[in-house]
Amino acid sequence: MAQQASAEIRSLVETWADAVRRHDLPAILAHHAEDIVMFDVPPPLQSRGMAEYRKTWDLFFTYHRPGQAFDIEELQIFAGDTAAFAVAIMRCQSTTASSPQKLVDFPFRLTIGLTRAGGGLTRAGGAWRIQHEHHSVPATD
Amino acid sequence: MAQQASAEIRSLVETWADAVRRHDLPAILAHHAEDIVMFDVPPPLQSRGMAEYRKTWDLFFTYHRPGQAFDIEELQIFAGDTAAFAVAIMRCQSTTASSPQKLVDFPFRLTIGLTRAGGGLTRAGGAWRIQHEHHSVPATD
Repeated sequence: MAQQASAEIRSLVETWADAVRRHDLPAILAHHAEDIVMFDVPPPLQSRGMAEYRKTWDLFFTYHRPGQAFDIEELQIFAGDTAAFAVAIMRCQSTTASSPQKLVDFPFRLTIGLTRAGGGLTRAGGAWRIQHEHHSVPATD
Repeated sequence: MAQQASAEIRSLVETWADAVRRHDLPAILAHHAEDIVMFDVPPPLQSRGMAEYRKTWDLFFTYHRPGQAFDIEELQIFAGDTAAFAVAIMRCQSTTASSPQKLVDFPFRLTIGLTRAGGGLTRAGGAWRIQHEHHSVPATD
């Protein structure tokens, strides 16, 4: 069961990253819990709920153009029955606040926490939902 | 079962944070998987395995004195049978690389991924182990 869950989550994460590359906002938001907790690369410290989560992508799309990298370089998945987490090294191409004309290419760290409704012994569990994302780069100080 | 798992994980995280405040390295390292993947606030991008994980604390203790804050301000836990994750806002007091004489007080984000051996239907699961930590502050650019 853990193996099947891992395959489902890998597919979900790959589909989501592809939606980010295409700036397909409905597809980016399609598999999240309403009370998602987002820790993004830029401020704020945290964003809670889908309305705030969506705003983090509005901001990202001011720096990132469709087709620029938002690529999964390494991905490990740890899945149980109703909770799972994914640990990834990603690569991103974007401009930055201080260099709006310059395209930079940098790695970042991504952790995704997922949950689903339990299935018990006799029925299948629910679909996996992203409950938490934590994106970051190492601090410069 | 999820409720009991959450209580066990809350206790584990609180005990670990207390060990950090006391610089008690054996207690800090006591509940980790050998192949821990650490994303820390400062570089490197990632640290893999207990030897590299331990080095991140050697570095932290050059900036943090025993008794200074390493406090859990908000903590949510999502636990299944064999995988779980914790989402926290933390507060830390330390000096920094650029201001070695100045004590700063700042919030940071922490995600912890945990796993344990499955118990099946007739026996208890194994003890929870920390498989992944992701510490970060929002990027300044």
